[in-house]
Amino acid sequence: MKRQLILRERYNSVRSETLNLMAGLSPEDHLAQSSAEASPPKWHLGHTTWFFETLILKPSKQNYQVYNPQYAFYFNSYYEALGPRIDRAARASLSRPSLSEIHAYRDYVDKEVLDFIDDGPWPEDLLSTLELGLNHEQQHQELFLTDFKKALGQQAFFPVYRSDFVEDHRLIQSAQWIEIKAGLYDIGCGGNEFHFDNEGPRHKVYLNDYAISSELVSNADWQEFMEDGGYEKPEYWHMEGWEWLKKEAVCAPLYWLKEQGEWMQFSLSGLKSIRPDAALCHISFYEASAYAQWKGLRLPTEAEWEVAQNHFHWGERWEWTNSAYLPYPGFKEYDGPAKEYNAKFMINQMVLRGASIASPTNHSRPSYRNFFHPHFRWQFNGLRLAKNL
Amino acid sequence: MKRQLILRERYNSVRSETLNLMAGLSPEDHLAQSSAEASPPKWHLGHTTWFFETLILKPSKQNYQVYNPQYAFYFNSYYEALGPRIDRAARASLSRPSLSEIHAYRDYVDKEVLDFIDDGPWPEDLLSTLELGLNHEQQHQELFLTDFKKALGQQAFFPVYRSDFVEDHRLIQSAQWIEIKAGLYDIGCGGNEFHFDNEGPRHKVYLNDYAISSELVSNADWQEFMEDGGYEKPEYWHMEGWEWLKKEAVCAPLYWLKEQGEWMQFSLSGLKSIRPDAALCHISFYEASAYAQWKGLRLPTEAEWEVAQNHFHWGERWEWTNSAYLPYPGFKEYDGPAKEYNAKFMINQMVLRGASIASPTNHSRPSYRNFFHPHFRWQFNGLRLAKNL
Amino acid sequence: MKRQLILRERYNSVRSETLNLMAGLSPEDHLAQSSAEASPPKWHLGHTTWFFETLILKPSKQNYQVYNPQYAFYFNSYYEALGPRIDRAARASLSRPSLSEIHAYRDYVDKEVLDFIDDGPWPEDLLSTLELGLNHEQQHQELFLTDFKKALGQQAFFPVYRSDFVEDHRLIQSAQWIEIKAGLYDIGCGGNEFHFDNEGPRHKVYLNDYAISSELVSNADWQEFMEDGGYEKPEYWHMEGWEWLKKEAVCAPLYWLKEQGEWMQFSLSGLKSIRPDAALCHISFYEASAYAQWKGLRLPTEAEWEVAQNHFHWGERWEWTNSAYLPYPGFKEYDGPAKEYNAKFMINQMVLRGASIASPTNHSRPSYRNFFHPHFRWQFNGLRLAKNL
Amino acid sequence: MKRQLILRERYNSVRSETLNLMAGLSPEDHLAQSSAEASPPKWHLGHTTWFFETLILKPSKQNYQVYNPQYAFYFNSYYEALGPRIDRAARASLSRPSLSEIHAYRDYVDKEVLDFIDDGPWPEDLLSTLELGLNHEQQHQELFLTDFKKALGQQAFFPVYRSDFVEDHRLIQSAQWIEIKAGLYDIGCGGNEFHFDNEGPRHKVYLNDYAISSELVSNADWQEFMEDGGYEKPEYWHMEGWEWLKKEAVCAPLYWLKEQGEWMQFSLSGLKSIRPDAALCHISFYEASAYAQWKGLRLPTEAEWEVAQNHFHWGERWEWTNSAYLPYPGFKEYDGPAKEYNAKFMINQMVLRGASIASPTNHSRPSYRNFFHPHFRWQFNGLRLAKNL
Repeated sequence: MKRQLILRERYNSVRSETLNLMAGLSPEDHLAQSSAEASPPKWHLGHTTWFFETLILKPSKQNYQVYNPQYAFYFNSYYEALGPRIDRAARASLSRPSLSEIHAYRDYVDKEVLDFIDDGPWPEDLLSTLELGLNHEQQHQELFLTDFKKALGQQAFFPVYRSDFVEDHRLIQSAQWIEIKAGLYDIGCGGNEFHFDNEGPRHKVYLNDYAISSELVSNADWQEFMEDGGYEKPEYWHMEGWEWLKKEAVCAPLYWLKEQGEWMQFSLSGLKSIRPDAALCHISFYEASAYAQWKGLRLPTEAEWEVAQNHFHWGERWEWTNSAYLPYPGFKEYDGPAKEYNAKFMINQMVLRGASIASPTNHSRPSYRNFFHPHFRWQFNGLRLAKNL
Repeated sequence: MKRQLILRERYNSVRSETLNLMAGLSPEDHLAQSSAEASPPKWHLGHTTWFFETLILKPSKQNYQVYNPQYAFYFNSYYEALGPRIDRAARASLSRPSLSEIHAYRDYVDKEVLDFIDDGPWPEDLLSTLELGLNHEQQHQELFLTDFKKALGQQAFFPVYRSDFVEDHRLIQSAQWIEIKAGLYDIGCGGNEFHFDNEGPRHKVYLNDYAISSELVSNADWQEFMEDGGYEKPEYWHMEGWEWLKKEAVCAPLYWLKEQGEWMQFSLSGLKSIRPDAALCHISFYEASAYAQWKGLRLPTEAEWEVAQNHFHWGERWEWTNSAYLPYPGFKEYDGPAKEYNAKFMINQMVLRGASIASPTNHSRPSYRNFFHPHFRWQFNGLRLAKNL
Repeated sequence: MKRQLILRERYNSVRSETLNLMAGLSPEDHLAQSSAEASPPKWHLGHTTWFFETLILKPSKQNYQVYNPQYAFYFNSYYEALGPRIDRAARASLSRPSLSEIHAYRDYVDKEVLDFIDDGPWPEDLLSTLELGLNHEQQHQELFLTDFKKALGQQAFFPVYRSDFVEDHRLIQSAQWIEIKAGLYDIGCGGNEFHFDNEGPRHKVYLNDYAISSELVSNADWQEFMEDGGYEKPEYWHMEGWEWLKKEAVCAPLYWLKEQGEWMQFSLSGLKSIRPDAALCHISFYEASAYAQWKGLRLPTEAEWEVAQNHFHWGERWEWTNSAYLPYPGFKEYDGPAKEYNAKFMINQMVLRGASIASPTNHSRPSYRNFFHPHFRWQFNGLRLAKNL
Repeated sequence: MKRQLILRERYNSVRSETLNLMAGLSPEDHLAQSSAEASPPKWHLGHTTWFFETLILKPSKQNYQVYNPQYAFYFNSYYEALGPRIDRAARASLSRPSLSEIHAYRDYVDKEVLDFIDDGPWPEDLLSTLELGLNHEQQHQELFLTDFKKALGQQAFFPVYRSDFVEDHRLIQSAQWIEIKAGLYDIGCGGNEFHFDNEGPRHKVYLNDYAISSELVSNADWQEFMEDGGYEKPEYWHMEGWEWLKKEAVCAPLYWLKEQGEWMQFSLSGLKSIRPDAALCHISFYEASAYAQWKGLRLPTEAEWEVAQNHFHWGERWEWTNSAYLPYPGFKEYDGPAKEYNAKFMINQMVLRGASIASPTNHSRPSYRNFFHPHFRWQFNGLRLAKNL
């Protein structure tokens, strides 16, 4: 019974947090979508609910009455095995179903899931899927914040999400080199605590001697790079990074703009002056890598990051590594519909480690692998330097 | 005083009709935009209001307090002389200002315009601009209906605008050839009644003997064309029409789809069977022209249409002509900011004559020139045949 | 027999002129293609030959042995009725058949056509088609020069076609207004002399009083427009013209470039200083129209041009008119495979009148209708102004 | 002196091999370019020559007279530090300089390089760069064959390069699993023999127990995959692979086509039946990976391949691995202009190991790292399976 109480509480807490984050948004705000890669708030609400309905309720409850069979079309994200679905770029066209209908859908599914919990005990694999659903919803809480920031950032006149939202909790201190000895190390997650399939299995990697910075790169550091012509000198850039920069006319991090000679940045609390001692944010892998080249240093690999991570503070910025997002040796994807959760994305993306100020509390681990294409900048991305010894 | 009362009444009537048409739409419906060429309802609301504020209130009222200086950026459609503006394709990103703010903007401007009317008498040119603003708003009433139909039509599961909305008021009768003798005719509008600049001046055109059909082409006629392979035979098509058809995989009018062997069409009242005896609708100029070729006939020119129009019933479909949208001899565009109203579009477009079931009452004239690119289909477009004698 | 001798001579003269124009080009030059709209010299050689083979030899000679059945795929330009064909943009991929094979193909077909001429007399329609083939080849002689200029112009370092090729034969004199009275006029070609189907039938048009300039706009005139900010002021431009200019970063006529503060132009004889008193060349319809707006004047219609043309000198520049390329009243397209010659292009193009320094001798008439999309600039296009009286 | 003789001989041998490969091509064949990623033969001729001129002759010979200063613009491939250059996609526009001029350029530079060799002894770094130039030319010999195959393959009617060119030297035997024990292994090249910068330094990797197939996948194997619906089932594919397949309508390896029910493949010796027992070729990484998924197996990593490679036959197909192209630990790029040779491509590409039938003799090593984007198919790519133990 205790486990069921804990589960109920955790379920309620995660689900209500999603609504808390969106409280105060107008119905129209719920439709805002900046690009095909980002989703409108309304879609996040429906999709996370559909995930529970499809992976928990339909397989486990006999005679489960699907709330609305059309919703599978709207709210399936990318699961080929689960049928046809709306084009990603068209999610903002969802004027129907209305926001109130989606809220009713959430209420319906919540009641059913709580009943399901009460009806336990359940086999471990179902409970694991429930836990996956909760972690999935937490991922979408972060995505909501970053997607919505992007949507606001593309509107004129910099509308505000919440005037008290703080993006920089902690200021950058003077950096130290943390030195790690060469040797065989274990990385990845192999235990029983929750982790995504892509974090395992735990396995050995050999690392050479290396050092990693105790601090993220700061806005002041980045301005030095800019003032030294970092964005104008191809020698620091990957060829595809340079082509991207030219095509997109990139000359500063995302959300930076110059007003009357001063660099400002758009944040969830509006347009602000740049704090030199805050952690740099919203850069692509290309920019992170070019900065490291300019310094004569490099980005850490994800193994180097994980091995060293207990020696430094992290959690405000996702940190780009120089590791491609590929399966670990012995990787085993999820069974069933969740098979498509991570495995099919393991190409053309780079790994980020850590967490960000938009990550829900407790939704981070040293083994957590985030991943994005090298030109993506709208997550709260930063960078930390490393070097050979 | 009488003129002022009439003006007040007309102003109130046109303005409230816009709101009537959108009554019942959810805030999210107000944001629906199907493509760059079509606008969300919310934008139509703001743009028509901005038009009065900018062309009437700002030039005429001393110390007029602009409601919100940012709105010029949002609601300027294409007037280069009136400053920078939002990209057309981004109008759906307007989650801010909210719908209620836009309604408040309308109320504010309405009160100011009514005060302006009361403060008259006013010079004729200002009253003409006021009348232009009202005709402009009526054009947007029609555009709202066609744009919103397109937005609904792109959503899954065919949502309904209003279940009692009728697209086919009048059924097609058996067609007669109306014969017109060769000679010099006057076309265009030169009088004092309201007309757009592009309708004038009245001028002479020489026409050969010709005949024009008393009826529009019907759905049954079109199905015959389809069954005879009209969409598969390049010999009926302009080369660019054929390339368009191939690229877009066009094989039927817009909004037609086959369900279980039967042709259906999406309408503002939902998905319906096709009435064979209703007027064909939602075809491009390319399709209209190919149909005429297939029949061994042709489309009328706009002059032929105008000269013959009092001999046939019209007003439910905009009718494609084989005339390019170009200035009439002696054409004089509007002075002032309205200069850009029509003149700068006189390239690459074809003229349509008549009116449609979406046109507001009294918003049509024999000299009215509508115009669209030859591939546009989301207006209520139809066609009428002509031939040489 | 006399007619046959004349025909032989004319055939030989036209065919050899094509080879004369390409004499001195390397095999690689024969493959140069600047864009999908322009063709490599090799393709012009093959296509004009295929035209005779397909429209004369195959229909008229029993047991005619097609030179190579694959050539229909290579050398069909756009005739849907004549089978599948190579994509336009891929014509430069024609490394096979080799240039010498194409020369052999020309020799083969020439011999067969000359035999065909000797075997006459032939029915008039076949002789008309032969004459069409010769006029067709002359059109391609002009296209070769303009296409090859474009191909050279896109290469680095401005390679020369022929150092003695003169683009400006005649300098601009001081301009007069030629005044024409209002009235009914006949335009178009209805006689027995050769003309393309799109030039007929001869028909009546009513014109208002107007005046047309005795001279083309000169380079000096154009520089005045540029210096007055003509390319920076949207008020002179069609909306689509302005969008085109922004997208393509157009700020001068095609082939103009500034070197060390001086405007130069690329010509078939290399890079030259601009002669202020030469006729302006290589502008789009959008630019021509914007210039006229800037002058407070307008472009003539094609009817105005044709009615007035015997009062001024023409023939060095194709002259943009403000007429869309549409069928004349009573237009009858060619029968048979040549049906596609002109009719299917009658949409989205503007008419040019006159001829150019690249037009073959005797290949021009007052009724000749050239036509291009409004953004095309690589023909030798100029403009002449008109005004209402 | 002996070293100089050997160098002369090696230089002459590599340089003349390039000409041998292109012997028999027409001047037009030398211009054939299939896409931006592939280059025309003429460009390969000039670029490899420019490489010697720029990296050897200019830095080492006092008063060296550059053959033609414009050639740097034509023949620089991607070296930002070496100045502006022609757009890749425009290399086929190079009708000038002519083929004979490029041959003269080769002769001039060859004479100068041979003089340079005779003038030695030279410091080691210059000799290394000379060796790099020769290996560079060998890479372009292979690229010439694959690029030219692609150019021919896009022409109609399957033109032949050489009728005696054999793509399948060796038939697939019955496959064995080669088992490798877990442990620390050294991979990469650290010795003094020539290797590219990306092959070093030699370094340790930890591998789990694994097995790798003794044979490549054969055409017969692949047909089994196709017949089982491999190209229609998204569950085997990366999401981006599936989107690529849909967009490009991929349903078979590149150059395969079905004629009268039989699968054929285009080869450098023309269109041939598919040999079931030949090694599969011309597949993307996406296809290779989907095949492995379908078999319930996986691709090897590049470390696994290198550790096992002396246990199996390789050298006819480049073999896709599941390793991203990233720098080895301690990687040090070349100094000087060759810095851009490899390092700036280390993103978004996958590693291939081995060599192919188009690789020059002796131009392969166990440590050689080839790399391409996952959708590239026009190299002679194949695959070999691996599995965990």
